[in-house]
Amino acid sequence: TLKSMSASTINLAVIPGDGIGPEVIAEALKVLEKAVAAEGVVLEQTHYKLGAEHWLATGETLPDEVLADLRTRDAILFGAVGAAPGDTRIPSGIIEREMLLKLRFSLDHYVNLRPSRLFGSVGSPLANPGVIDFIVVREGTEGPYVGNGGTLRAGTPHEVATEVSLNTAHGVERVVRDAFRRASARERKHVTLVHKHNVLVYAGHLWKRTVEAVAQEFPDVTHDYLHVDAATIFMVTDPSRFDVIVTDNLFGDILTDLAAAITGGIGLAASGNINMDRTAPSMFEPVHGSAPDIAGQQKADPTAAILSAALLLDHLGYTEAARKIEAAVITDVENRNGGARSTSAVGDAITAAL
Amino acid sequence: TLKSMSASTINLAVIPGDGIGPEVIAEALKVLEKAVAAEGVVLEQTHYKLGAEHWLATGETLPDEVLADLRTRDAILFGAVGAAPGDTRIPSGIIEREMLLKLRFSLDHYVNLRPSRLFGSVGSPLANPGVIDFIVVREGTEGPYVGNGGTLRAGTPHEVATEVSLNTAHGVERVVRDAFRRASARERKHVTLVHKHNVLVYAGHLWKRTVEAVAQEFPDVTHDYLHVDAATIFMVTDPSRFDVIVTDNLFGDILTDLAAAITGGIGLAASGNINMDRTAPSMFEPVHGSAPDIAGQQKADPTAAILSAALLLDHLGYTEAARKIEAAVITDVENRNGGARSTSAVGDAITAAL
Ligand SMILES: CC(C)[C@H](C(=O)O)[C@@H](O)C(=O)O
Ligand SMILES: CC(C)[C@H](C(=O)O)[C@@H](O)C(=O)O
Repeated sequence: TLKSMSASTINLAVIPGDGIGPEVIAEALKVLEKAVAAEGVVLEQTHYKLGAEHWLATGETLPDEVLADLRTRDAILFGAVGAAPGDTRIPSGIIEREMLLKLRFSLDHYVNLRPSRLFGSVGSPLANPGVIDFIVVREGTEGPYVGNGGTLRAGTPHEVATEVSLNTAHGVERVVRDAFRRASARERKHVTLVHKHNVLVYAGHLWKRTVEAVAQEFPDVTHDYLHVDAATIFMVTDPSRFDVIVTDNLFGDILTDLAAAITGGIGLAASGNINMDRTAPSMFEPVHGSAPDIAGQQKADPTAAILSAALLLDHLGYTEAARKIEAAVITDVENRNGGARSTSAVGDAITAAL
Repeated sequence: TLKSMSASTINLAVIPGDGIGPEVIAEALKVLEKAVAAEGVVLEQTHYKLGAEHWLATGETLPDEVLADLRTRDAILFGAVGAAPGDTRIPSGIIEREMLLKLRFSLDHYVNLRPSRLFGSVGSPLANPGVIDFIVVREGTEGPYVGNGGTLRAGTPHEVATEVSLNTAHGVERVVRDAFRRASARERKHVTLVHKHNVLVYAGHLWKRTVEAVAQEFPDVTHDYLHVDAATIFMVTDPSRFDVIVTDNLFGDILTDLAAAITGGIGLAASGNINMDRTAPSMFEPVHGSAPDIAGQQKADPTAAILSAALLLDHLGYTEAARKIEAAVITDVENRNGGARSTSAVGDAITAAL
């Protein structure tokens, strides 16, 4: 049920979360509201209290009723979750797994889409970054993220801990096909599979065979393969070589943080957790975390959240509005001179540039 | 049975391997011979034919008798193995797993030591690299590298492929203690654990708990923790923050290629596969691969192989000789002007600078 361009309402779930989440989401909503108003569309918002703060107050991570309620929305705009690293009141990783990853898995967000683009003047740490414009299609619902593993004889000298990576033909094929589809709509039409099939043979060969098979359906798309270790080298020596990267959940996690770093930092990196079958709402979030150290101080860059809102509009079919937000962001980013602006000042500037 | 400084002979196993392996090893041996001769030590060499070429000729990867013979040597100097990527005669990954990884696992090379240092003038792709001088202590005998996994219903739409990461208290503790020991001998005395314990909870918590416990034994060493994705960001934005990184086999594989890239490329990156209990010979190898595209053309940089020979001498207790090789390499590297030199010209220059 693809929302058509003529739909008059977007029924949006908003999860601001912890730390800088609420601040950056406020700016994303400013931009989103103006962008859709221009199309005659009403943005209906339902805000959800979830995250580390909420867990401390209630002991809840993601109750079933809340998940059921979220399923009734058209899309989810997500800020960031997570307590301060030193906060020992919260069992490590519990919010990430029982809330963020639970959302990705329950709502079948199998395409974790992370575009990487270096905007003109924005500081890459690379001396000669060249033109950087690629997307990472990270698998979002399986691999080493399934939580399958265990501990035997914990805390003894005989402890054994396992982690099981689960990979299915169903899961790999749909995300690989998505990557080829996206590549086929791009100029360079090139897919790079990143894995480590010389060591992780079972999962690696499933990925390789699937890419070879799906490639047959896309004669206009070329493809190649890189081991994950080699991919990190190219990321800093020749990032222009990438067009569309398709990879598993864990390698995608690692590569997209590196990709964000070389394109000017996670203040600019947007992502979509997308259910391409539209059997549940997709979720859009900045790649950055909750950054508790700068929370509440209007120091966070809302650009990643704003670009995530553009991905959200894209997914719902409001392509024009999405392009306008991106253009406004580019205008703003290219005119940055390194001077500090408040979170809301950046949001206002991008809203004004719309 | 630590080889003492007064030993008059080093009984060295040499595995030149494929591609550029023989070329770079020839230069490493030149340097090694001169360095030990200055200490009055004789270098006895036994060369082993192993690798992709050997497999094509004989079907052998690493026969038991050869492994048994290798065990009788003091140390192993290893070049590189692997066929051309397009060579379909060799089942993918077979040489890596049945030869290289089999050596690491059989000889219990639990410390995979990879130093990263940016030498003066050598080109880092980073605009402001700063001072880079850290070591990665990568676990070498367990984790996702154990080859434990399988495939169900291969080639059907119902295929399931698993990869199991095995982590033991024994395996984690010994490598973590090694990292703290090395940190304690360094100036900054700082250990960074890199993992992903918010997602890989079972293995992650074993690593975290072990670091906390071992840290008690080293009150002079500080430590912190980074998720692997965040670590890649720091690798390109603030590599000076690292002193000693300790991490698992797969994260270490990824991080050390990235570390090599930011310090001027894998032409300079050395490594040791070390059995610290000295129950079997350790093995020293450049981080780079066999680079079949430039093999036999005297185009490969032998510096990584030469620095690996220095790590070998360090391990055998010839610390002075090791320092001299490093100094000769630094002299040579700092005077490079980007002009192309042959593999043997570089080896000759470093030998002369000894
Ligand atoms: C918070 C964490 C669970 C998450 C992940 O590993 O996927 C984050 O790093 C990301 O990339 O969105
Ligand atoms: C060749 C391969 C098996 C190996 C590894 O993954 O360990 C290599 O990448 C390395 O880092 O030494």
